[in-house]
Amino acid sequence: MQFLSDNAAAVHPAVWKAMMAADAADAPYDGDALSRELDAAFTALFGRECAALWVSTGTAANCLALASMVQPHGAVICHREAHIEMDEGGAPGFYLHGAKLLLADGESAKFTPEAVAAVIDPIRDGVHQVQPHAISITQASEYGCVYRPEEVAAMADFAQAHGLGLHMDGARFANAVAFLGCEPSEACAGVDALSFGFVKNGGMGAEAIVFFDPAAAQMIRFRRKRAGHLQSKGRFMAAQILAMLDSGLWLDNARAANAAAGGIGAAAGTRLLHPVEANEVFLSCTADERAALRGQGFGFYDWGDDAARLVTAWDSQDEHVSALARAISGL
Amino acid sequence: MQFLSDNAAAVHPAVWKAMMAADAADAPYDGDALSRELDAAFTALFGRECAALWVSTGTAANCLALASMVQPHGAVICHREAHIEMDEGGAPGFYLHGAKLLLADGESAKFTPEAVAAVIDPIRDGVHQVQPHAISITQASEYGCVYRPEEVAAMADFAQAHGLGLHMDGARFANAVAFLGCEPSEACAGVDALSFGFVKNGGMGAEAIVFFDPAAAQMIRFRRKRAGHLQSKGRFMAAQILAMLDSGLWLDNARAANAAAGGIGAAAGTRLLHPVEANEVFLSCTADERAALRGQGFGFYDWGDDAARLVTAWDSQDEHVSALARAISGL
Amino acid sequence: MQFLSDNAAAVHPAVWKAMMAADAADAPYDGDALSRELDAAFTALFGRECAALWVSTGTAANCLALASMVQPHGAVICHREAHIEMDEGGAPGFYLHGAKLLLADGESAKFTPEAVAAVIDPIRDGVHQVQPHAISITQASEYGCVYRPEEVAAMADFAQAHGLGLHMDGARFANAVAFLGCEPSEACAGVDALSFGFVKNGGMGAEAIVFFDPAAAQMIRFRRKRAGHLQSKGRFMAAQILAMLDSGLWLDNARAANAAAGGIGAAAGTRLLHPVEANEVFLSCTADERAALRGQGFGFYDWGDDAARLVTAWDSQDEHVSALARAISGL
Amino acid sequence: MQFLSDNAAAVHPAVWKAMMAADAADAPYDGDALSRELDAAFTALFGRECAALWVSTGTAANCLALASMVQPHGAVICHREAHIEMDEGGAPGFYLHGAKLLLADGESAKFTPEAVAAVIDPIRDGVHQVQPHAISITQASEYGCVYRPEEVAAMADFAQAHGLGLHMDGARFANAVAFLGCEPSEACAGVDALSFGFVKNGGMGAEAIVFFDPAAAQMIRFRRKRAGHLQSKGRFMAAQILAMLDSGLWLDNARAANAAAGGIGAAAGTRLLHPVEANEVFLSCTADERAALRGQGFGFYDWGDDAARLVTAWDSQDEHVSALARAISGL
Repeated sequence: MQFLSDNAAAVHPAVWKAMMAADAADAPYDGDALSRELDAAFTALFGRECAALWVSTGTAANCLALASMVQPHGAVICHREAHIEMDEGGAPGFYLHGAKLLLADGESAKFTPEAVAAVIDPIRDGVHQVQPHAISITQASEYGCVYRPEEVAAMADFAQAHGLGLHMDGARFANAVAFLGCEPSEACAGVDALSFGFVKNGGMGAEAIVFFDPAAAQMIRFRRKRAGHLQSKGRFMAAQILAMLDSGLWLDNARAANAAAGGIGAAAGTRLLHPVEANEVFLSCTADERAALRGQGFGFYDWGDDAARLVTAWDSQDEHVSALARAISGL
Repeated sequence: MQFLSDNAAAVHPAVWKAMMAADAADAPYDGDALSRELDAAFTALFGRECAALWVSTGTAANCLALASMVQPHGAVICHREAHIEMDEGGAPGFYLHGAKLLLADGESAKFTPEAVAAVIDPIRDGVHQVQPHAISITQASEYGCVYRPEEVAAMADFAQAHGLGLHMDGARFANAVAFLGCEPSEACAGVDALSFGFVKNGGMGAEAIVFFDPAAAQMIRFRRKRAGHLQSKGRFMAAQILAMLDSGLWLDNARAANAAAGGIGAAAGTRLLHPVEANEVFLSCTADERAALRGQGFGFYDWGDDAARLVTAWDSQDEHVSALARAISGL
Repeated sequence: MQFLSDNAAAVHPAVWKAMMAADAADAPYDGDALSRELDAAFTALFGRECAALWVSTGTAANCLALASMVQPHGAVICHREAHIEMDEGGAPGFYLHGAKLLLADGESAKFTPEAVAAVIDPIRDGVHQVQPHAISITQASEYGCVYRPEEVAAMADFAQAHGLGLHMDGARFANAVAFLGCEPSEACAGVDALSFGFVKNGGMGAEAIVFFDPAAAQMIRFRRKRAGHLQSKGRFMAAQILAMLDSGLWLDNARAANAAAGGIGAAAGTRLLHPVEANEVFLSCTADERAALRGQGFGFYDWGDDAARLVTAWDSQDEHVSALARAISGL
Repeated sequence: MQFLSDNAAAVHPAVWKAMMAADAADAPYDGDALSRELDAAFTALFGRECAALWVSTGTAANCLALASMVQPHGAVICHREAHIEMDEGGAPGFYLHGAKLLLADGESAKFTPEAVAAVIDPIRDGVHQVQPHAISITQASEYGCVYRPEEVAAMADFAQAHGLGLHMDGARFANAVAFLGCEPSEACAGVDALSFGFVKNGGMGAEAIVFFDPAAAQMIRFRRKRAGHLQSKGRFMAAQILAMLDSGLWLDNARAANAAAGGIGAAAGTRLLHPVEANEVFLSCTADERAALRGQGFGFYDWGDDAARLVTAWDSQDEHVSALARAISGL
């Protein structure tokens, strides 16, 4: 009964089916019929003109998105526990040619314009200090918490007022939209570029970078190739994404994962370290308690010495979730 | 009847089967059981200790392999028409942090130690000129021609004598081995790192970087992650490669592609611009002749004004090949 | 009466004299007779074999020194207020090709092995997090405080035990040695590369990078040229440094600057925010008090809202120092 | 009697005088009064608004100028024997974050729009090949030959028509203007950024980067600092440049050097490999003849097996020049 991560879950049958349907040779790279559908698909989803590029990982999506906003001598403000800071092996430094990450604080890995101001206000104007070029927020956050539309809008206003780009790491954007119950566009209003995740949500190895200014996408097409991310059989990448968008599968899968996490969260009660708004549960528990859970067959990661991280996925099984909820209640 | 490229061909059924068999969640990234088999699989294939990493493109494979040999202030000697020079969108400059490519000449996109010497001998010692750090050769070459084992060995001796690393771009390594009829190890003897291609040969989106010095692989694991190429569901990458290695599928597929090209080449006779040793045919023909071929339903690329490039793949159909051979004979 | 900075002070007459004596054409770059003396001069000074390169700025010195220890996928641990983090416009990101700075805490911009451990111990092994490659300490620190020989040795032991390089930013190394009254070698024992500053101490535009492993210098010669720092009339660079080393001018100048700061510090008493161990005084004082000082003709920088930074130089005039001391006493 | 290079010549007395006059402390970096005069000085010289930055080397000047025009995924077209390609240790790869140099051919290290077209026309549109972003020409060329105003204008028209930036490496711009006898602005009409050399022409270690679009200079101020080229005692840099511009010293010095080269060139007659238009003479001569010249006390570089390079400077002595002319005539 695995609650280790959503990023290794099985691939959804509809995705498999779409990939197999794409088997016949078509134009290589992103010249195939499916890849050429992507812009329209996201334009329809967001109700405004978009340009979208597939890449195989969230790391590449985040870094290429940021490359459209950040010069090598600039900086990105992100949360101290953001994936780009903590878990991408220094990829932003590589893709941004040495640009810096500046770290903001905030509860549950979310942060506010005030937190950004606390970082950038002390930066002296001039060439001696690295100047901010962009802000990156994560929707849902690394602790599974969701920016409300008005919070996103406030950050977008701040970014615009300060001449900064705004990137959203949406590795779990689907879970955020499922939680908010809003239009996708509301969950990322004012964002310049969105890393829209599918791998954790039923895909195999395809994420989308969505540019709300299509002109910005053009330069990134060069950068994607230059990073070795332009796969020759790109039709299989596009197929995954289109299958996920088709009939709202992306949202159904996210709802299922969220519901599973919600069930666990309800059982956790006051043990919860963060509100459960997506598909992650952070649980206060001792080493003994963790051992007890593992003894009952549950897999998950320790989170420091006094906590556990439990992640659900689109395919979490009801009986596993119920069993885990019972086990937590019984601690 | 497509002879445009092997890089958009269908995925072999055995590869599909292996991928589907890998669907159940396993450890993420390259911690899964299949990824952990790779080193042993290549060690068995080459009869010596290897370390192997999967990546999704040949561009990434080439550039990461070179990153193990070339410092940012160094240079790689490659053929003037090498893929890394002509077709990778500047990826070597990105991955090698500004290192240079120095261009050697030679027939059919192959080159010799003498050609390397012609490039490096005029380089003044000292800091004013970029010094060579590595050589990169392509097996089979960009014109479908194959380095004989003794040619590879001569280049390896030269590299070693000059303190240079030796990389082999083996996007069509399988075709080369199929042509040579030798052990895989003989086709790359003395090479430090091999980009072993599978995508053009029946895979979907997985290539292997094989390091014959396993210690060199360790640094590249960091670089792969940093380049956003460490996919979270890496088991699907490993599955493709293992399926190709299993029962010699890689060699069977390459033999099929080579045989198809051989048939076309035989019909082409004196029109051939390069010997047909792998799965590519470069045909001298006028614009009118190309139009005639296209009129009969054949797809292929122009190669300059006076030639055509025809590429076969593992799944080229006999009747298409025969039809093309007849059409060429009839020009 | 300027106490703004030592980095804009006049050039010492002996340095001028040495530069003028070097006017006649000699071999360009670092092939001239003076540049070729540098290794021996520093070898004599430190009592062990060294290789030394001139560069025109401390930023270049720091970054080139670090480039000998840090791979693009690695990190440097430095103090949160280190010059490389706060004042070099992102130069480490440029010279290290995207490597990270990781920030340690400590009093007076000094830090300890324990503080380094607090930074690196939580770093998970493996490719997802940037691994440390080097430590950089500043002697004297950005707050004018000096690492005692045993503190340097403890950091060197820690670095060695963890396989990390150790760099010392010695923009004010002379002031540190003057304070310690020890051999120069004791003030940097165990350090791999030292940025030895002369510009703040009577030079015009020449700093030295001293490598205690001469082999490490060789690669950096290439990197220096590649960074556009190999001046063609390098003899004027070497002349400055040799003049400073000659007859202990570097130490005399530092002693003068330290003495001036000491006089101010004595007057400051309990207002001191940091011990005065080099040539900088950080003084707690209100905006009104700062206005009062400025009204009396003293120039200096505000340091946040409640403090002032006063810096002396080799040519601070006794009467200015006395006047400042009186003015501070009279606040 | 040295004719090795102009880049190690003595510093002109007026430059020394100006540097010494700048000794008193002023604002650091480029905040001093002299540095703040630069824009106006070049604006006056060129008769149009300019922004100018000092740096210590031609390599830094060239690379920073190009950084204002070339993205990391782009390319610069330059001559096959351009300094940026042959003599800067790979600095363009560093400063441009991996961008490429594409090599054009032409007599005497000059090239034409047609030569650029020959390089860029075969580049396929799209992401697989590196696209050109800028052209760099050298005035006077590496063989001491000068672009006529109409040649510069033609290149500028071509650049503009193709959306490319135009950089001029003017390490010997003064010699070119002296040869042309035209306004400085005519010698670089249509150029976006000029590396204006002073070091070879009587300066010590200061070159100017002149941006004819002042807005472009702003980003390069950040890049200069980030490259460690913002010297703290920048007033000595500005002083050199202002002294050279004052009363046309730059032009007088260049005329003197050109005249010396002209005298040698006249004696060389049919031995000349390139027209003598600046201060370099390339002479066809055998090893025995070179030995004979050296035997008479002349210093110079071999240029391959069958030629010599003789360079004059602002301070070449008449009697040395006459003696060399006689010696060449007597070969």
